[in-house]
Amino acid sequence: MKFDYPDDSLTLHTDAYELSMMQTYWKKGMGNRRAVFEAFFRKMPFNNGYAVFAGLDHIIRYVKQLRFTDSDIEYLKSTNQFDDDFLEYLRDFKFTGSINSFEEGDLVFNHEPIIQVDAPIIEGQLIETAILNILNYQIMVATKASRIKSIVGNQIVMEFGSRRAQELDAALWGTRAAYIGGFDATSNVRAGKLFGIPISGTHAHALVQVYMNDYDAFKAYAETHHNCVFLVDTFDTLKSGVPNAIKVAKEFGDKINFIGVRIDSGDMAYLSKKVRKMLDDAGFPDAKIIASNGLDEKTIQNLQMQGAKIDTWGIGTKLITAYDQPTLGAVYKLVAIEDENGNLVDTIKLSNNVGKMSTPGKKQVWRINDRADRKSEGDYITLVDEDPRKEKSLNMFNPNFPLQQKDVEDFTARPMLKPIWQDGKFVYDEPTLEESRQHRFESLNALWDEYKRDLNPEVYPVDLSQKCYDNKLKLIHQVHEYVKSLNK
Amino acid sequence: MKFDYPDDSLTLHTDAYELSMMQTYWKKGMGNRRAVFEAFFRKMPFNNGYAVFAGLDHIIRYVKQLRFTDSDIEYLKSTNQFDDDFLEYLRDFKFTGSINSFEEGDLVFNHEPIIQVDAPIIEGQLIETAILNILNYQIMVATKASRIKSIVGNQIVMEFGSRRAQELDAALWGTRAAYIGGFDATSNVRAGKLFGIPISGTHAHALVQVYMNDYDAFKAYAETHHNCVFLVDTFDTLKSGVPNAIKVAKEFGDKINFIGVRIDSGDMAYLSKKVRKMLDDAGFPDAKIIASNGLDEKTIQNLQMQGAKIDTWGIGTKLITAYDQPTLGAVYKLVAIEDENGNLVDTIKLSNNVGKMSTPGKKQVWRINDRADRKSEGDYITLVDEDPRKEKSLNMFNPNFPLQQKDVEDFTARPMLKPIWQDGKFVYDEPTLEESRQHRFESLNALWDEYKRDLNPEVYPVDLSQKCYDNKLKLIHQVHEYVKSLNK
Repeated sequence: MKFDYPDDSLTLHTDAYELSMMQTYWKKGMGNRRAVFEAFFRKMPFNNGYAVFAGLDHIIRYVKQLRFTDSDIEYLKSTNQFDDDFLEYLRDFKFTGSINSFEEGDLVFNHEPIIQVDAPIIEGQLIETAILNILNYQIMVATKASRIKSIVGNQIVMEFGSRRAQELDAALWGTRAAYIGGFDATSNVRAGKLFGIPISGTHAHALVQVYMNDYDAFKAYAETHHNCVFLVDTFDTLKSGVPNAIKVAKEFGDKINFIGVRIDSGDMAYLSKKVRKMLDDAGFPDAKIIASNGLDEKTIQNLQMQGAKIDTWGIGTKLITAYDQPTLGAVYKLVAIEDENGNLVDTIKLSNNVGKMSTPGKKQVWRINDRADRKSEGDYITLVDEDPRKEKSLNMFNPNFPLQQKDVEDFTARPMLKPIWQDGKFVYDEPTLEESRQHRFESLNALWDEYKRDLNPEVYPVDLSQKCYDNKLKLIHQVHEYVKSLNK
Repeated sequence: MKFDYPDDSLTLHTDAYELSMMQTYWKKGMGNRRAVFEAFFRKMPFNNGYAVFAGLDHIIRYVKQLRFTDSDIEYLKSTNQFDDDFLEYLRDFKFTGSINSFEEGDLVFNHEPIIQVDAPIIEGQLIETAILNILNYQIMVATKASRIKSIVGNQIVMEFGSRRAQELDAALWGTRAAYIGGFDATSNVRAGKLFGIPISGTHAHALVQVYMNDYDAFKAYAETHHNCVFLVDTFDTLKSGVPNAIKVAKEFGDKINFIGVRIDSGDMAYLSKKVRKMLDDAGFPDAKIIASNGLDEKTIQNLQMQGAKIDTWGIGTKLITAYDQPTLGAVYKLVAIEDENGNLVDTIKLSNNVGKMSTPGKKQVWRINDRADRKSEGDYITLVDEDPRKEKSLNMFNPNFPLQQKDVEDFTARPMLKPIWQDGKFVYDEPTLEESRQHRFESLNALWDEYKRDLNPEVYPVDLSQKCYDNKLKLIHQVHEYVKSLNK
């Protein structure tokens, strides 16, 4: 089989079954039927109390470039899995539908739609794979970053994981997601160029090895850079690295900005305390100690408890691979489809597991806040024709445990799914990355501390409106009747 | 800060400290000094007995495109971290060095160099990040794929993980690595186009939801495709999905190729046995049962033990994210550097942890096989000027436990690091992907079963030559003397 096509194509970045279904829809004359797909996830990442939404920017770039090139068509033809007339149709394919989505930096929760595609079914089907591919990763990294940033408070945290990321895109988009999640800088220069994230990094062990001694290496670095952080653990942190860093800092005085030292191995608690004392005794009380080496929110907390004297944190593997849970597991489900008479009909995917059933109908997610203290009371999911802003009082109940309920008054309700595309037109005024990063800080302010603690947080309410709940029950009943009718 | 540059650049896909060090090397007149870097990993992935090398093709593409564009220089200037004369130098940067590497589909082991860069230090430093970024992921997926393929034997395994991968590159390159590791097909259409991997996929739950019943959906699919696999678990696998699949298969007869049914949820052991009987009773003994849903080598073995009747496996999350260990953790260390007199001098990075010390000197890895049965006796690492093919007998010993040793005679020795670039010239006759996939099958044949079992395998010997070992001891001693001299 030929595979030296001149161009790559993100349009083909999809599962083969999407194209197979598209062929069926098209050949059966159903391709243009309106369909509503919604993506949601079932389990909170890392058992955290909230997740941070990220990935929309990459989704936007992906949707904007959608078109089948000549070589895409040629390749699809070569597989003998598609008919010529369908392939001819694909030549004119473009996205004409609508997309509504949470915004980057928003807090999101399980069992609520986080992105919604309302489009001709043939279009909504194609883009499933890439949307999930992007969200399932970026939300994990943004959430992990937010957990880590919450632990270090005002201290600086830097994303250092490029070499441990799962291929190039993860290094690039992962560090962007980490920035949205509250990180302060990245080591990835390409992410600096593309996204404007501050870049950070001084030198590696190799520089010290080249000189075969710390002093000459630090001196060479100081002669060629103004801002200096010296990596002190190449040969012996306390006996060679730190004394030589201090020696060079003293010799160069005001000629350099001696920021501090970095430790990348060994017992961080012990070493950092010793190093702090050495720096203080040498007259450098403002010099920072930067630590890296397999860190995450748990090891940082542990170091803090041991009284480690660390000022700045470099985080690699555990963040960029979302090590303790490498994927979110979000799914993308058909919730409504136009019938042959032009009516939009709700639809459901059943499962023996209640938590795995989809919630039918095109929906909106409302964030309900107390009007006085502005804290979040929970998220309220309605069918799209409902508007809780018109209600004086909301009865909020857990759809899986309907007896667990509360009445909310004096609330504000904010619709969380915002229009990105409308009938093929891009309508979103995309915020800057700095604004998205700031948005997460502000979103967290509206959340009670009980939802934010890193271990065993309270479960944030994500509730269905009565109408939405009744609609779900009705569809479950319809399917049961259908299955029963087959087996009479 | 500006960040709307017109072009992206993989040349900047590097850590900031690489560029900081490059500035130091260049300004100190050392940029062209010859340096040897070697990448290796310390721990076998998934505690497997071997790892499968993959990623070289992406590394080759990356190195071939290396150059700093005008906008790269403009961006670096805007950071105020680099001097103008250094940035001017970068405009003419190109890779002039040599790279030696294992080949894709080769088996590799911990503590041996898997790729070696022998180049002016300024060039070898730049490419560290991307090389590790690629290898740390692709080797994990190829190894995981090989573990899974070994369990299923001649059954078909398909890579279905795109939507759960860590961003787009992981979906694309991960499925290529899985193919090298022995997988048979992918769902990712782009990987089909770019790499020629067979693509596979039929329909999702959405198609059934559109019709609101299995029968109409399967019929529509059969009317629009020749090869048919029906997904039977949308509403009720045994009561609706399978009976309707059989009904459609009977109605269409020879008009379609009824391959079988796919189950994506529920109790796979129970359902597959029931479904097998239903298909057999209906006269479709050759129809296949395809299973997917969070599978990996452990769940597959468990299903096999329960007598599940599954013929074909679709593997997603656990493979494409290398779920149980998301990164290999390979590192890239300077092992030799030219001094001011033009002599190549070996160098070491020490650590309190013996396993974390690097092994100094430019090396070659030899695979030692028994001449009679052709089985591997182990890998033998020498300094580059040694040639074990000239020896009659090899004394192989474990460098961390030197008392553990054996003498090998009547052996063959094959150099595993092959030339890819020589002095800036690309010299590698790259095998096709099919050849790399085949190469893994053949490489595994030379390995005793004891190294291949998926649980608690024997440890494959990776030994140092006496000369290489003595050289390491000498350098450790030198560093100790240096540290002692500082603290007299």
